[in-house]
Amino acid sequence: MASSVTPTPLLKDELDIVIPTIRNLDFLEMWRPFFQPYHLIIVQDGDPSKVIKVPEGFDYELYNRNDINRILGPKSSCISFKDSACRCFGYMVSKKKYIFTIDDDCFVAKDPSGNDINALEQHIKNLLSPSTPFFFNTLYDPYREGADFVRGYPFSLREGAPTAVSHGLWLNIPDYDAPTQLVKPRERNTRFVDAVLTIPKGTLFPMCGMNLAFDRELIGPAMYFGLMGDGQPIGRYDDMWAGWCIKVICDHLGLGVKTGLPYIWHSKASNPFVNLKKEYKGIYWQEELIPFFQGATLPKECTTVQSCYKELSKQVKAKLGKIDDYFNKLADAMLTWIEAWDELNPTTKVPNGK
Amino acid sequence: MASSVTPTPLLKDELDIVIPTIRNLDFLEMWRPFFQPYHLIIVQDGDPSKVIKVPEGFDYELYNRNDINRILGPKSSCISFKDSACRCFGYMVSKKKYIFTIDDDCFVAKDPSGNDINALEQHIKNLLSPSTPFFFNTLYDPYREGADFVRGYPFSLREGAPTAVSHGLWLNIPDYDAPTQLVKPRERNTRFVDAVLTIPKGTLFPMCGMNLAFDRELIGPAMYFGLMGDGQPIGRYDDMWAGWCIKVICDHLGLGVKTGLPYIWHSKASNPFVNLKKEYKGIYWQEELIPFFQGATLPKECTTVQSCYKELSKQVKAKLGKIDDYFNKLADAMLTWIEAWDELNPTTKVPNGK
Repeated sequence: MASSVTPTPLLKDELDIVIPTIRNLDFLEMWRPFFQPYHLIIVQDGDPSKVIKVPEGFDYELYNRNDINRILGPKSSCISFKDSACRCFGYMVSKKKYIFTIDDDCFVAKDPSGNDINALEQHIKNLLSPSTPFFFNTLYDPYREGADFVRGYPFSLREGAPTAVSHGLWLNIPDYDAPTQLVKPRERNTRFVDAVLTIPKGTLFPMCGMNLAFDRELIGPAMYFGLMGDGQPIGRYDDMWAGWCIKVICDHLGLGVKTGLPYIWHSKASNPFVNLKKEYKGIYWQEELIPFFQGATLPKECTTVQSCYKELSKQVKAKLGKIDDYFNKLADAMLTWIEAWDELNPTTKVPNGK
Repeated sequence: MASSVTPTPLLKDELDIVIPTIRNLDFLEMWRPFFQPYHLIIVQDGDPSKVIKVPEGFDYELYNRNDINRILGPKSSCISFKDSACRCFGYMVSKKKYIFTIDDDCFVAKDPSGNDINALEQHIKNLLSPSTPFFFNTLYDPYREGADFVRGYPFSLREGAPTAVSHGLWLNIPDYDAPTQLVKPRERNTRFVDAVLTIPKGTLFPMCGMNLAFDRELIGPAMYFGLMGDGQPIGRYDDMWAGWCIKVICDHLGLGVKTGLPYIWHSKASNPFVNLKKEYKGIYWQEELIPFFQGATLPKECTTVQSCYKELSKQVKAKLGKIDDYFNKLADAMLTWIEAWDELNPTTKVPNGK
């Protein structure tokens, strides 16, 4: 159980917390006992002249749109504006092995015993223990204390696979789409499900960017949140797009994706009417996107995340371009993203690499 | 939440409770408030001359080995002896749409609030609501009260698929194999995970027969628990075998399999040394069985459970027969089972069918 009032700052020097925002970061006060030992990367969306206040005592770097434009030059076109998709810039400039990203309307949740949940600690536990994508374990995460593999679980699969992604959940306001928000305006998530589980190989899921952690070295270059918001025909599909891409690539590379604990407390529902405007093309398009990703296969030669992602971009252009020209632009942006990633993250294998 | 002291006897005339046993059924006393409205099918294993006492007030029919031999004649060879696999005879003689099967060392568990869990009621809820095998919902069963499909879940998939199987879990003694029992003799399952979820299409799982419900009309003919126990080289793989077969067939036919709630209280661990003797060939063989079932595909022409099962039997013989002659016998027994099933369950579609 990930709750403690005196948390151990695990991986203190190996993890960055990425926060996209348009306002003062007062929400950090509540997270202080858990986040203060870590470095923050704040990606300021919207008007770059606005000054974002960060509570004292936090170690952070902040990037606004001017910074993004300066650092990436023409390649900054791949980073969305006026959409929380801009957060992926933070993934790119980080130099750490792990990323935790959280929205600024997310607060510390309590477990059923009333203890504060250290979400970050649970994500780290999820990332540091293996996943089980090849066979389902009915007692959920077999690596948790008090659990194990059940009878009938093949012994050869019990070492599991490296975990690339840890997807956390939300109490209070659930992550619903606009139509569901409209139909169930008062629904709140009060069910604390005390489980972490691996999403099986071959199965897609809706990845939410609100409370998410991942291993940059294993999957970072595929964590691109796409083209959303300003000047684009859709919004609120940034994390979904990334989730479909990373799942196809994790499946191909034999990496695991976990979901479940930790919970955060999601404080306020976004406006369903505004959301509907942002989402409606996505709602329509996703009926074709899901079969595309379900059917996507990558050739054996793709052994790095970058090569997988470039191949996926090619398939997006070939198969989704006909739905709307937006997907041609998105496919190009995917390539630009990889170029920018490689520029900011030169591989250490190349001697004198820039 | 499946807890109530005054349960509504849902599906009273459409569900049989199947119990394999070798002893007096005192355990039914604890289940009386929940089971008494239902009809029981008791399959007596072992010495048929022994008299099994059933607490007063229960409506039941009981079959011992002599009954099985008399009813099935030479086809009784497909029903295991001296192994709880014999329970599947009960599935075959039932005339109801739904089956719930439970072991006689399973008692009523309590939920975290201390209320008795009506396991049967939760199974019925699971079976009567759809499954979501084609896409993972991160808030688990979207049909439960207080839950729904999350943002990014394709609308075209929200009707779900008919649920064929509901797999319940166990508090106290977890369902571990002999090696794990030996290594962790004191481990108890104390984690109540308040979730029901669909095992995604294409994913196999270890199905345990201790606390299991299913729709006989949808999947009954595939719920064969194989050849185990007396005269056979293995035991304790009866439910696993059935689980692999039903999952492949459910995936092919577009049916759903759920796992999670309800919990029962599993009272005593079986002897790990005896279990090891029963299991060791299974532990070895399952390393080849899992890839076989993971790769098994059924032709489009197989549109009934029976035809799927016969096809699977053919593939078992062709691909597993070389591991051990046991699998040739098992493949034959699978066909015998289907013949016996069809004999006892003549289809209503045939006019004047026997």
